[in-house]
Amino acid sequence: MVEPHLRESPEERSAGLEVDLHADVVAALDAEDRDAIRASAGELHVADLADLIEQLGHDGRRLLIEALGSDLDPELLSELHGPVLTEVLDLIGPREAAAALSQLETDDAVYVLNEFDDEQQREVLAELPAEDRQALQAGLAYPEDSAGRLMQRDVVAVADFWSIGRTLEYFRREADLPDRFYEIIVIDGERRPVGTLPLDRMLRTNADLPIGMIMEPAEHLVPVDMDQEEVAFLFQQYRLMSAAVVDRDGRLAGVIMADDVADVIEEEVEEDAMLLGGVAETDIQETVWTTTRTRFSWLFVNLGTAFLASAVIGMFDAAIEKIVALAVLMPIVASMGGNAATQTLTVAVRTLATRELTAANARRVVVKEAMVGAINGFVFAAIVGGIGFAWFGDWELGAVFGLSMIINMIAAALAGVLVPVTLDRLGVDPAVASGVFVTTVTDVVGFFAFLGLAALLLL
Amino acid sequence: MVEPHLRESPEERSAGLEVDLHADVVAALDAEDRDAIRASAGELHVADLADLIEQLGHDGRRLLIEALGSDLDPELLSELHGPVLTEVLDLIGPREAAAALSQLETDDAVYVLNEFDDEQQREVLAELPAEDRQALQAGLAYPEDSAGRLMQRDVVAVADFWSIGRTLEYFRREADLPDRFYEIIVIDGERRPVGTLPLDRMLRTNADLPIGMIMEPAEHLVPVDMDQEEVAFLFQQYRLMSAAVVDRDGRLAGVIMADDVADVIEEEVEEDAMLLGGVAETDIQETVWTTTRTRFSWLFVNLGTAFLASAVIGMFDAAIEKIVALAVLMPIVASMGGNAATQTLTVAVRTLATRELTAANARRVVVKEAMVGAINGFVFAAIVGGIGFAWFGDWELGAVFGLSMIINMIAAALAGVLVPVTLDRLGVDPAVASGVFVTTVTDVVGFFAFLGLAALLLL
Repeated sequence: MVEPHLRESPEERSAGLEVDLHADVVAALDAEDRDAIRASAGELHVADLADLIEQLGHDGRRLLIEALGSDLDPELLSELHGPVLTEVLDLIGPREAAAALSQLETDDAVYVLNEFDDEQQREVLAELPAEDRQALQAGLAYPEDSAGRLMQRDVVAVADFWSIGRTLEYFRREADLPDRFYEIIVIDGERRPVGTLPLDRMLRTNADLPIGMIMEPAEHLVPVDMDQEEVAFLFQQYRLMSAAVVDRDGRLAGVIMADDVADVIEEEVEEDAMLLGGVAETDIQETVWTTTRTRFSWLFVNLGTAFLASAVIGMFDAAIEKIVALAVLMPIVASMGGNAATQTLTVAVRTLATRELTAANARRVVVKEAMVGAINGFVFAAIVGGIGFAWFGDWELGAVFGLSMIINMIAAALAGVLVPVTLDRLGVDPAVASGVFVTTVTDVVGFFAFLGLAALLLL
Repeated sequence: MVEPHLRESPEERSAGLEVDLHADVVAALDAEDRDAIRASAGELHVADLADLIEQLGHDGRRLLIEALGSDLDPELLSELHGPVLTEVLDLIGPREAAAALSQLETDDAVYVLNEFDDEQQREVLAELPAEDRQALQAGLAYPEDSAGRLMQRDVVAVADFWSIGRTLEYFRREADLPDRFYEIIVIDGERRPVGTLPLDRMLRTNADLPIGMIMEPAEHLVPVDMDQEEVAFLFQQYRLMSAAVVDRDGRLAGVIMADDVADVIEEEVEEDAMLLGGVAETDIQETVWTTTRTRFSWLFVNLGTAFLASAVIGMFDAAIEKIVALAVLMPIVASMGGNAATQTLTVAVRTLATRELTAANARRVVVKEAMVGAINGFVFAAIVGGIGFAWFGDWELGAVFGLSMIINMIAAALAGVLVPVTLDRLGVDPAVASGVFVTTVTDVVGFFAFLGLAALLLL
């Protein structure tokens, strides 16, 4: 299973995944041979099977799910996303889905349930035994993207006065432990976490000692309602492998593991990237209609700013009528400003997210960006000024071209960092709105500076 | 230490970090009170101290490092980045640095050493005892961003025929084990990993059994030269907490833990975001000059494409001279196309990276994006057509405006997905070059369609 990952280029890689992992299933699907489908799908790791399902068309999915029938691994559901997940649920029906959910860990079951629409949720919950239903409803009660949604509820918690020997005994007898755990959470009489005991330390020390004596004091406790972005920050900053989650009374509610956080980290960075690109969601599984709607709103905002910019141009139509070269060159000033601003903006948004850019060094960063903008501005002013002169044989035009380039590059640098920093101060996610503001600034300043100077100096 | 992370808005958050964690140190620095600096810095987690150092100016850094003196925690170095790290090294000098490195785990020491320039590396290596030097040189020999750089070398490996009891004995006696481990790697006679044994399972089973009987078979072995992006994929896809790393002969070389991978995941997604924003590096610590140079090259490429677009405008200067409204409206067509293309491009690049977009579903995605582009194209055609008519009272102009909008929105959608997919097929990172291509397409098509149709129909 490792082999395909040895390949270098992403293309070969996914091709590798295709060929090495998916080919048999795809072949069996083409042959509509249900036994072969079941057999070959069984060969795949559930995560790879999920990828395959998301890459198949609707018919392929139906055929595969129907062929799997009761062989369907519950874990598969927690590996699927959005529209595909709901599609699969419709295929297996609420009873099957409920059976599957009751076999998943709470956090995974809650994730799956949360992807369903309200009616599907009701149907599935109705099928569940009361106990499971309450557990899942409790999980759904936590705000989305909160620690409560990430944590798993079954935890190995031991009283601080227990001896290591007694704890080891407990492990051997107790059947109902989580499948996998790496640390023991040490609790006091009120079930408040007071420390953690990594298993390896337990193995290295004398069995008579009470756990309270060798545990590590509980440092990074996570409140159930902490935002998952905060949780990810804690795990990265302090290199945690797991963290105890506490309810509002400080009592142990669950535990979050490093592998749960990996997805959050990707999600959060990806979210910024998407927002900067003007898209609200990644999911390539969404329907044409949903995608169109989500894209539309951002484009509509952009249309407004674009008309604002062209209104600026309209102010100088007389100048353009006299010197058409202005119409030919003006997009260059705007475009260079837009790109310079996007560069600064991208860095600002990311460094704000990673907290490299803070109140403490904001001023220094602004000054630096302005200097970078100014330097590049002068360099490009020389370049475009020369080209403008060479092209239209008019040195005054070249001068206006270069001068406006300097102005817009500095404006771009300032907007690129000041806009996100300000939004951040106001508690607005800088990734969301920055793009529009910033490019509006560079368009308006670019056109106004270039055409305005031209009207002043060339007419 | 958790408290500040409870706050919601990023601004409050970093402010919180400031106030709650950094204030005392900053105050002591302002007072230039070395004892107070040492004391308050000692209160901070090394990761928070590193953040503070990166936010200080040069003088603050010097004062802090000098005040810390021999109290400086070696771990601090592995928490610092690029320019700040080299600055700190210059402050403490090669002998101190060597002493610090020899106390770090190999992967961290190699990371630090790698950030130094060649001369600093030579100086530090010269100060190290031969054994450490060889270990670090071996680490540096692995390609950058490879598994060999990520792994830590001291591993708990046990022969498959050992009994659990014997292994536990070994843990109690052996002093020289890693500080922290969660799984045992089970090896055969040739030191090849044959399985892993999570500690919790070991604690739950009978001490007489040989490890080979209860281990989990080794599934996801990581070759030393595997790219870190691949490693991150393996960890996320199969939810690994740790993975054994093998040399070219399949022998155990080290182990990678989930918390090492968290940074890689962020790094890789961030890299895409940066490249899409036209920046090669994030580091806000870089000097003005370095930053200017790295930004320049991308802007220069953009300048070329901008002139290409304006050359297209130049072809129609006669038309613009007659109808100035063309110059006023043409940036809107280009800008809307550019934004629509960026939306599609952003999704395509990310889904290629996460392997949601593969050879298997590429055609479906292209068709879908084209449809989305067409639909939005028609909607915006109606809007801008109407506005164009209302603004200039010329329905033919409005028609040309709308028609070119449809053309450019479809071109944008196609370019937005076809360009990255093609680059990916060619083994080029689609995030690097896509932006330029795509916006060039939308500028050229936008201006050509709008002005060309105008020249045909309005003159």
